[in-house]
Amino acid sequence: MKKIAVMGTGGVGQAYASRFITLGYEVMMGTRNVKEKLADTSRDAYGNPPFSEWYSANRNVRLGTFQEAALFGEIILNATMGAKSIGALKMADVKNLNGKILIDVANPLDFSKGMPPSLLPELSNTNSLGEEIQKTFPDVKVVKTLNTMWNGLMVNPAMLDGGNHTSFICGNSAEAKEKVKEIMKSFGWPEKEILDLGDISSARGTEMYLPLWLRIFGATGNGAFNIKVVSLK
Amino acid sequence: MKKIAVMGTGGVGQAYASRFITLGYEVMMGTRNVKEKLADTSRDAYGNPPFSEWYSANRNVRLGTFQEAALFGEIILNATMGAKSIGALKMADVKNLNGKILIDVANPLDFSKGMPPSLLPELSNTNSLGEEIQKTFPDVKVVKTLNTMWNGLMVNPAMLDGGNHTSFICGNSAEAKEKVKEIMKSFGWPEKEILDLGDISSARGTEMYLPLWLRIFGATGNGAFNIKVVSLK
Repeated sequence: MKKIAVMGTGGVGQAYASRFITLGYEVMMGTRNVKEKLADTSRDAYGNPPFSEWYSANRNVRLGTFQEAALFGEIILNATMGAKSIGALKMADVKNLNGKILIDVANPLDFSKGMPPSLLPELSNTNSLGEEIQKTFPDVKVVKTLNTMWNGLMVNPAMLDGGNHTSFICGNSAEAKEKVKEIMKSFGWPEKEILDLGDISSARGTEMYLPLWLRIFGATGNGAFNIKVVSLK
Repeated sequence: MKKIAVMGTGGVGQAYASRFITLGYEVMMGTRNVKEKLADTSRDAYGNPPFSEWYSANRNVRLGTFQEAALFGEIILNATMGAKSIGALKMADVKNLNGKILIDVANPLDFSKGMPPSLLPELSNTNSLGEEIQKTFPDVKVVKTLNTMWNGLMVNPAMLDGGNHTSFICGNSAEAKEKVKEIMKSFGWPEKEILDLGDISSARGTEMYLPLWLRIFGATGNGAFNIKVVSLK
C-alpha cells in the first residue's frame, strides 16, 4: 500500500488526506507540533471547525510532526500555507525528502497587504513557491499542480461538469510528472484536461493566476468553479 | 457615427481598428510620431510587416499623434505597450481624455528579465496598469477588459467555439462598463460570457493571469485559445 505524507492540516490537507484514504493509501499528516494541533479548539480563518474535530472523524489518518510524516511518506504533498512552506519542509528535514516526489499544491499568498491577498513579492513574478522549493531541495522531485482551484475540485474534479475543466502540471522531472498524473487520474482528472506547462518555472504562471481566481470568487461568491482552456483546433 | 481613438499601432491596435471600421465607426489611430511611424519599414518583434503596409491596406483608418487621436475620439482604446501606456496617455493630454471612457486592453509586460516576460513590479501584485491609468487620470472612466487573450479573439470571439469562453471587465463606473459591454457584444461576446469582476483594482487579477497565458501558449504553441469559467450551479 502506497504511503503518502500530507504536510499541513488545514482544509486543503484534509481534502487530500480523506481522498487518499478512500483510494486505499496510508496517510500521515504532518504538523509543526502534534500536541498543540490536537489541543487547538479554535476555528480557522474561514470559520472551519478545529482540526481535532475532523481528525476524530477520520481515524484512518495518522498525525505526526513534519519530520515523522516526511519519513513515513513515499510521496510528499505540500498543503501548508505558502508563506510557511519552506520552513515546514526544512523542519521535515531534507534527508526525509531527498529522492522523493513532492507534490506542491500551495500558493504564496500574502495576507499582510489587505484582502483579497496579493502574492509574496519574493515568491512571485520572477520566482514562485514551486521554484523556491525546488531550489531549496534540489534532490527532491517537485511537481506543481492543482493549486489553481478550490480544494474540493482538486481531488474530485468530476463534481463539476464531469471533470471537463483544466488542471496544470509543472516540474523538472518528466517521470515524476507521469506518476503525479496517474494520481490525478485516480482523483478523476481526464488525461486530456491535465496540461503539462513544462519545467518548474511554469509554476510562476499557475501561482500568478491566483489573484484572478480570488476576484472571480469575490465577484460570483462561488468558489466551486474552475477554468477550462478552450483552443481553436 | 461614433468616433474611436485607438492608441497604439501594433497588432492589437490594428485588430481593433479593423474591427471598429467593419462595425461602422470612425477610427483614428494614435502614435508618438506619425512621420516616423509611416517611414518605419522594419518588422516588429513578432515578425509582423511594418505598420505602413497595414495602413496602406486600411485606408478608412486615420492616423494621428496620440494628442490628435485623443481629441478626435469620443471613446479611447489603449492598445499601447503596457510599459509605455502612461507616457503615451500623458502625450495625448489629460484635457483630451477627461470625461471619456478609456478601454484599457494592455498588459504591463516586462521584457527586461528574459522570456517569457514577467510583469513590471511597480504595476503588478499590489497595483496594476488599469489602476495606474485610473490614478493618473482620475476624471477618465477606465474600463479594463479583453487583455486576457490573443487580439484576434478579443474582437472576434465567435471564431472560437461560437464565443463560448470568458472575458472579464473591471472599472469604477458601472455606466462606462455597460457601454463597453455593448461594444463587446457588437464584437460577438455573449452577455453571459462577460464577467464583471468589480472595480478597477480587479485589473490586478486579469493582468496577473498573463504569465499563465504565456505558459499555456508556450506549452501548446497555439495562441488561439481562451479560458472559460466553469461553475457548479
